[in-house]
Amino acid sequence: MNTEHLFLKALNGAKVDRPPVWLMRQAGRYLPEYMVLKEKYDFFTRIRTPELATEITLQPIDIIQPDAAILFSDILVIPEAMGLEVQMINGKGPYLPETIKSQEDVDKLKVKNVEHDLEYVYDAIQLTKNELNNRVPLIGFAGAPFTIFCYMVEGQGSKTFHKAKTLCFSNPDIAKSLLDKITNVTIAYLKRKIENGVDAIQVFDSWSGLLSYADFMEFAFPYLKKIHDALADQVPVILFPKGSDYALRDIASIKPAGIGIDWTITPEDARDLTHGITLQGNMDPSKLFMSTHKIEKEVKEMIDRFGIQNYIVNLGHGMLPTIPVDSVKAFVNAVKSYEKL
Amino acid sequence: MNTEHLFLKALNGAKVDRPPVWLMRQAGRYLPEYMVLKEKYDFFTRIRTPELATEITLQPIDIIQPDAAILFSDILVIPEAMGLEVQMINGKGPYLPETIKSQEDVDKLKVKNVEHDLEYVYDAIQLTKNELNNRVPLIGFAGAPFTIFCYMVEGQGSKTFHKAKTLCFSNPDIAKSLLDKITNVTIAYLKRKIENGVDAIQVFDSWSGLLSYADFMEFAFPYLKKIHDALADQVPVILFPKGSDYALRDIASIKPAGIGIDWTITPEDARDLTHGITLQGNMDPSKLFMSTHKIEKEVKEMIDRFGIQNYIVNLGHGMLPTIPVDSVKAFVNAVKSYEKL
Repeated sequence: MNTEHLFLKALNGAKVDRPPVWLMRQAGRYLPEYMVLKEKYDFFTRIRTPELATEITLQPIDIIQPDAAILFSDILVIPEAMGLEVQMINGKGPYLPETIKSQEDVDKLKVKNVEHDLEYVYDAIQLTKNELNNRVPLIGFAGAPFTIFCYMVEGQGSKTFHKAKTLCFSNPDIAKSLLDKITNVTIAYLKRKIENGVDAIQVFDSWSGLLSYADFMEFAFPYLKKIHDALADQVPVILFPKGSDYALRDIASIKPAGIGIDWTITPEDARDLTHGITLQGNMDPSKLFMSTHKIEKEVKEMIDRFGIQNYIVNLGHGMLPTIPVDSVKAFVNAVKSYEKL
Repeated sequence: MNTEHLFLKALNGAKVDRPPVWLMRQAGRYLPEYMVLKEKYDFFTRIRTPELATEITLQPIDIIQPDAAILFSDILVIPEAMGLEVQMINGKGPYLPETIKSQEDVDKLKVKNVEHDLEYVYDAIQLTKNELNNRVPLIGFAGAPFTIFCYMVEGQGSKTFHKAKTLCFSNPDIAKSLLDKITNVTIAYLKRKIENGVDAIQVFDSWSGLLSYADFMEFAFPYLKKIHDALADQVPVILFPKGSDYALRDIASIKPAGIGIDWTITPEDARDLTHGITLQGNMDPSKLFMSTHKIEKEVKEMIDRFGIQNYIVNLGHGMLPTIPVDSVKAFVNAVKSYEKL
């Protein structure tokens, strides 16, 4: 691992001259080069073919030149490896025809498949690391157990995930046995990713913000902590419990290398609650529709407020498909020329 | 106005023996009696026929017996009165075929129609007040300007409302002229509601939580405040900027009679930020899928933590269509028998 990389320095708390920058979903639909591959190959082919996953991961590295790469993949490879079919419906998102309703359903789930069924992910990591040739570090990721649980119980995206939450509230024992199982599989999966070469891990708890503080502490926090603690001696781990600002103090108590935040918390409040831990975020992706000049101003203000040290510039959520490539370049370049602004 | 009603006493800061209770979307699809009317009459017929709107408003008063009624209507009557067609697509929600894209589009909007086009709302209020016969007070409501703006620019529901936010960020002058226009129309509309007999007003900013603090203070807060200040000397006004917990201190500075909150903030934190203002909320509606016994326990704990005074028991979001009626009754009854629990 080359600890001279700006991204890893920021995660290790080392002094830097400017913060590193990358963007969540930097590989994806806003890039015409990605759309060419999307038209040729369906979602699962893109994910499962190491050469394609590698090419897609590298596209933004060449085009927008951020300080980290993130492996092109999907959080739902985990439910799939556990034996639930995952379909991807165009314009609608993921759909799982069979969902978890009972302890019996939980007991039937497979826990060993991440070793071999997800070999294509590990191959993609090795290939990507080769192709990157140490230009920037490679991030591996997984969904947090509560977020994966949401999809496995609800069967699809939802504004409320009330079926998933209802299982938590009505049958906490079943819910926790499922969360435990997801957690163990995710740890095994992320360990294999690390063995195959990723330099850092990000855990996305995309739906934890739908929980109250008490419910977050019961159904999300313990599993995030368990994953973190299983990996933290190997690579830096970034936890991103989106929208769970109410729990930032608790997240900080885990002492992860990094914490992701979105734009619904100010830099000042986030710093107050996290005691020097490296923060990552937090511009509203909708701001990338502004003029280049305004984007540069926004980036400068964001770095001014977070500070240069212990900070990774990013969005507070994934890229939107219609964001202009030039705006993304302006975002990245504004970070790189921060001192000159 | 009968200030002896528990709901109005709580809003006026008077001492009560137990907190009042009502539920957002207490008139609606979870009631079999509503479904009978839904099958017979389409959405706009239900909204626009005073006899039907009255019947639907009264259904929960008879069946679950909360301490306040809220007029059955929709926040999108405002864009419609301003000249934008609103369609309601089953299972998908609202759709506005023509959206606002330019200053020209804003300038073409009508501002006088709330006086006559929405006469059916005022008739429904009078009829409902008659039928209620002073059993409980009647709440009138409107969408907050930012939320109405979201639909007028986006044209439909969205997880991100990025088109709407992009108009704010890229063309703040156009956005503000639209927000001003919506605000003025909404004030005229709510004044007419008050003239026709509603006892209190609730303003729903359902999407303000998608904004950062700075953007909330620019694109949501001033318009909420303007509506509040235009009405507060006539009836109590409840402001519900859902998910904008980061701005609770500022909302409290307006000194509204009530502030709505959802379950992503604890009672203690909400109390700390709002200096004795009556709070309304905040149970996760998904908790109404728990057993009756657990619901009662949850309600008791909620009242214990908020306190009996300056508090209105409610959910943190609207009722879900699949919640059992008996669970809603258990929720209401748990509040009514609070001292005995």
